[in-house]
Amino acid sequence: MVSMVIALVAGAVALLFAAIMTKRVLSADAGNEAMREIGDAIREGSSAFLRREYLALVPFVVVMTIVLGVVIDLVTLGSAIPKTAISYLAGTICSAAAGLVGMNVAVRANVRTAAAAMIGLNPALRVAFSSGTVMGITVVGIGLLGVTILYLIWRDITVVAGFGFGASSIALFARVGGGIFTKAADVGTDLVGKVEAGIPEDDPRNPGVIADNVGDNVGDVAGMGADLFESYVGSIISTIFLATVVGAVAYNDNMAVLPLLLAGAGILASIIGTFVVRSGEQADFGQLLWALRRGIFVASGLLAIFALVIVLVMDLDFRWFWAIISGLVAGIVIGLATEYYTSYDYTPTKIIAEASQTGSATVIISGIATGMISTLVPVIAISLTILVAFELAGFYGVALAGVGLLSTLGITLATDAYGPVADNAGGIAEQAKLEAIVRERTDALDALGNTTAATGKGFAIGSAALTSLALLAAYAAAVGILDDGINLLKHTTLVGLLIGAMLPFLFSAFTMKAVGRAAFAIVTEVRRQFREIPGIMDGTGKPDYARCVDISTRGALREMILPGVMAVVAPLAMGFVLGTEALGGLLMGAVASGFMLAIMMASAGGAWDNAKKYVELGNYGGKGSEAHKAAVEGDLVGDPFKDTSGPSLNILLKLMAIVSLVFAPVFLKVTPVIDLF
Amino acid sequence: MVSMVIALVAGAVALLFAAIMTKRVLSADAGNEAMREIGDAIREGSSAFLRREYLALVPFVVVMTIVLGVVIDLVTLGSAIPKTAISYLAGTICSAAAGLVGMNVAVRANVRTAAAAMIGLNPALRVAFSSGTVMGITVVGIGLLGVTILYLIWRDITVVAGFGFGASSIALFARVGGGIFTKAADVGTDLVGKVEAGIPEDDPRNPGVIADNVGDNVGDVAGMGADLFESYVGSIISTIFLATVVGAVAYNDNMAVLPLLLAGAGILASIIGTFVVRSGEQADFGQLLWALRRGIFVASGLLAIFALVIVLVMDLDFRWFWAIISGLVAGIVIGLATEYYTSYDYTPTKIIAEASQTGSATVIISGIATGMISTLVPVIAISLTILVAFELAGFYGVALAGVGLLSTLGITLATDAYGPVADNAGGIAEQAKLEAIVRERTDALDALGNTTAATGKGFAIGSAALTSLALLAAYAAAVGILDDGINLLKHTTLVGLLIGAMLPFLFSAFTMKAVGRAAFAIVTEVRRQFREIPGIMDGTGKPDYARCVDISTRGALREMILPGVMAVVAPLAMGFVLGTEALGGLLMGAVASGFMLAIMMASAGGAWDNAKKYVELGNYGGKGSEAHKAAVEGDLVGDPFKDTSGPSLNILLKLMAIVSLVFAPVFLKVTPVIDLF
Repeated sequence: MVSMVIALVAGAVALLFAAIMTKRVLSADAGNEAMREIGDAIREGSSAFLRREYLALVPFVVVMTIVLGVVIDLVTLGSAIPKTAISYLAGTICSAAAGLVGMNVAVRANVRTAAAAMIGLNPALRVAFSSGTVMGITVVGIGLLGVTILYLIWRDITVVAGFGFGASSIALFARVGGGIFTKAADVGTDLVGKVEAGIPEDDPRNPGVIADNVGDNVGDVAGMGADLFESYVGSIISTIFLATVVGAVAYNDNMAVLPLLLAGAGILASIIGTFVVRSGEQADFGQLLWALRRGIFVASGLLAIFALVIVLVMDLDFRWFWAIISGLVAGIVIGLATEYYTSYDYTPTKIIAEASQTGSATVIISGIATGMISTLVPVIAISLTILVAFELAGFYGVALAGVGLLSTLGITLATDAYGPVADNAGGIAEQAKLEAIVRERTDALDALGNTTAATGKGFAIGSAALTSLALLAAYAAAVGILDDGINLLKHTTLVGLLIGAMLPFLFSAFTMKAVGRAAFAIVTEVRRQFREIPGIMDGTGKPDYARCVDISTRGALREMILPGVMAVVAPLAMGFVLGTEALGGLLMGAVASGFMLAIMMASAGGAWDNAKKYVELGNYGGKGSEAHKAAVEGDLVGDPFKDTSGPSLNILLKLMAIVSLVFAPVFLKVTPVIDLF
Repeated sequence: MVSMVIALVAGAVALLFAAIMTKRVLSADAGNEAMREIGDAIREGSSAFLRREYLALVPFVVVMTIVLGVVIDLVTLGSAIPKTAISYLAGTICSAAAGLVGMNVAVRANVRTAAAAMIGLNPALRVAFSSGTVMGITVVGIGLLGVTILYLIWRDITVVAGFGFGASSIALFARVGGGIFTKAADVGTDLVGKVEAGIPEDDPRNPGVIADNVGDNVGDVAGMGADLFESYVGSIISTIFLATVVGAVAYNDNMAVLPLLLAGAGILASIIGTFVVRSGEQADFGQLLWALRRGIFVASGLLAIFALVIVLVMDLDFRWFWAIISGLVAGIVIGLATEYYTSYDYTPTKIIAEASQTGSATVIISGIATGMISTLVPVIAISLTILVAFELAGFYGVALAGVGLLSTLGITLATDAYGPVADNAGGIAEQAKLEAIVRERTDALDALGNTTAATGKGFAIGSAALTSLALLAAYAAAVGILDDGINLLKHTTLVGLLIGAMLPFLFSAFTMKAVGRAAFAIVTEVRRQFREIPGIMDGTGKPDYARCVDISTRGALREMILPGVMAVVAPLAMGFVLGTEALGGLLMGAVASGFMLAIMMASAGGAWDNAKKYVELGNYGGKGSEAHKAAVEGDLVGDPFKDTSGPSLNILLKLMAIVSLVFAPVFLKVTPVIDLF
């Protein structure tokens, strides 16, 4: 009981700290009128998108809540109180709230970061990073509070799993919708502006420029927040599940509450870590990167110490400690590996840049090959973690490793979520025609953001793999096949595995095609405005920014439905048609191919982006050369890879696993179609 | 015993028929002196490559033969006669022979096809298709004879598996080496010739033009022959294995010899099918396609009848008949689906062509998305086949389905292997400056070849999936885990599965990077010759064709080693370190992700190729437009996808499975490293 109180206190502290940081961001200077005007447009567009996105999801959430309440709670579990349905609803609301809070700060921090950049690099870093911190700490705070409170009320993790399901379903829609919005606006705006009209990025004459800036916020901030929110709660829930259901301990046993305590310790470690993030005024790229890294390393070190203290004080099994550490180490290794494959400080990205001399085809081939090779280290790291953690404590150990990896999420998410703020600040500086030094400073922060974003993506993928496996084990326990196992040599399992391995490919195709269609709508609209609005090119006519935002919004909302529904329907269909073992195969097949695809897409996308930047530094002819054009094409291909399809895959894997877990009681009572013959 | 005699007779008939067809090809007119000179250069280059490739493989084969003779035969099986080693050696020799025969005819048929095209379309089709027939029928003839003879001698399928291993290892090197050669020469020659120097494809002034033509023969003919040779013997061996070891029947039981009989029947059906392939003189694309299709449909229909007769006469289990038919149907469905996604008669490829209006990035994204979506139908088709065949007759049924799918290989391979001959004929017509109508006729045959190649690739992938699964089951039986099953919820299996799923990505990356490096060497050489050889552009100076061939050869041979060795070492390492269940996981993980990647790459590559052709027909600006340039970039990306990395994946899956099967006796005697702790 003490442990849960500690978890509640830690969650409350997180929210308090986030509030303080928010106040600090808001108290910063918001710049001159031109800047505020641009900032307002971005804020309004972002808020409008999020509002419409959440509204569009209301029917889905309502239907799902009723289905869960009737099918799971009432009929299957025979419970008059719709516990699962309530948990689900709470999960959706908490996820939406986390996204909303983070984005609301980000859309105010962008203009303040630009203003701070007029003074210096360090002030700008402080504002942008504070905004990221609000996001990171809010996500973990709400997540920990939500799980702990529901768990205290229901005292049964089976129904609390609904909370994870709610978080996952909102996360999928937010990631997919936001990802489509941001890349459609980005690609569409660039294709017409940079390539056809020949005006620079972020030029205020481009009608799509505000939509592009809005995209950073709704995709990279709100989408990512929802994504990691669900990872976080998913890893905690699956660990408690494995403790109470498989380990058969009481709901408040040490084994069950350990993940809550760890998460609380992680919040504390993260908050302390944020204090060491600061840089000197003349900081170069390496020093800035080190400033952020130091925060993460300090937090990780602290977490290791806290975990040791917890294990010693509560007299827990010492093997659990090593399981936690194995996850923590895997996260850091995967993050560093992702950075190696995507930073132009290292060979792989330089080779891609070199290939730009022979045209875009060789850039693409080289990038895809690099993305594929970059799966090696993460797979080895996760494999070793699985082997070690499992040998130490079975699937509970694997789940603990996932919690260990995610426990410092408060700060890793902060270093990630600050990037879009810096990116936006650069856009505002450009549009408000601030002096060049301001843009240089925001560019430095933005470049840093690209690197931390790549690291963050590797981190997210690694955590998704471990959490999915933990959820798979929890599901297997729930349908009673954990002991007998899932037999790969059964035809139904084989088919489940093959179809599961196909789903990430299908899902990626849907989201990529969606970006293409939505971007095409933007291209058409930007071209139309250039053609029809008089004086738009010499600055006397004002572009209709809002219309581009509106078109992106409608495109994204329309396109997010099919992949989102597929993710919920596919596992249910498999379970009801071919049975629970086949569904286990499907989940594992999806992890196997989805993990590779997600890493490949994240690495290739990041490497193309940075190869372009490397050429822009003056290599192989620099900006405007044929090599640069080829590199830009690579970057355009990488955009949906790294910001839409790739990150959405993480959620797909976990969502399918948690749907299976939540519906486990139903599967137990229904005979699958294949057994009817 | 009668069955095996029938199989031997069928094999002998096949070789006899191939000899007759060869004579027919050689008796055709070989054209004028200019044509013969070009033909000679292509033939010499191709033979030189194959000779050097086989020589380069001698050390590998010798070492492997000794290892098998000592480790498997002597130490593990305690047999003084190195049965496995001899089988292995026979497999490598037969595979090399099949490739050699097919290619030797193809490099003589190309110039004769060009000469026949001077008379008309149908004569040209007859010559080219006869050459393809030699290849197809030789492959199945040698394959069936090899397996049957070895089986008659050893009377133990366990050691005959070595024959499959030999065939697989040569196939992998031939596919990878040939694939790297052909695409490096193709991409390298086009990049400098078409893009930089602005001269047309197949222009005799381009120093790489002969290397490009050689590539068609060593990659698409010899490489593909070796590939399907090993599929064919792999499916037969795994079926006999499942009958005699799992079904525990005598070596000459009906259940054991059924695959041999089926293969014999398939040879007969294929030979009859080739006689209905002919077209009218004014045939359009649809009629030409139908001419080839008719051959396949007639052969498939005959096979179904033969299978029925076999089952009735021998009084076999009727469920086996339906298992065979399920494979036959799956093959046709997958072939048609692949055609749908890659032919410009249908929407998917048209959408890619449409995307060329907004640049190469959108072409690439659209193509990759199409490739990913195209996994759906093949996965469903294979899944249904697995479900049906397994319910009917367990893994023996799945293996039978694989035999059913491959039994008409004689003719499906013929329709596939004729394409490169037509392609070469076009090149010869261009270089020998024949009148335009000749090139038009060869182009018509070539376009047809692209479609049948796409269909053939789908077919090859489908057969690879079924054969791999049958081999996986055979392996499981051999290491004694078929009854207990492979438990997906064991940590070692999970790790095996993840690493297995990674291998196709890693392997594809290696082969793509190899193409890039080898192509770069060609680019450098072609540029050098354009620069240093005086009068090369006005035709007074003669390019050094042989040097380009030599550079491609060396590049391909150097680059094929690493991926080839990886495919043999990876499963052995997994088996010895994490044990047999983990190895089962690895094999299945590789099938799951490799199947998707292979389909994606084949479809995307084919679709890009045809989207380019669609633009060249005059759509979106036609040849020379910006849209065309974008479409060409797509095609360049697709080249290594569809002709190097994609097809090699099929072999990777089967090679790893058969290595595991051959080393099964060793795994049984050795304790895996993980169990030592």
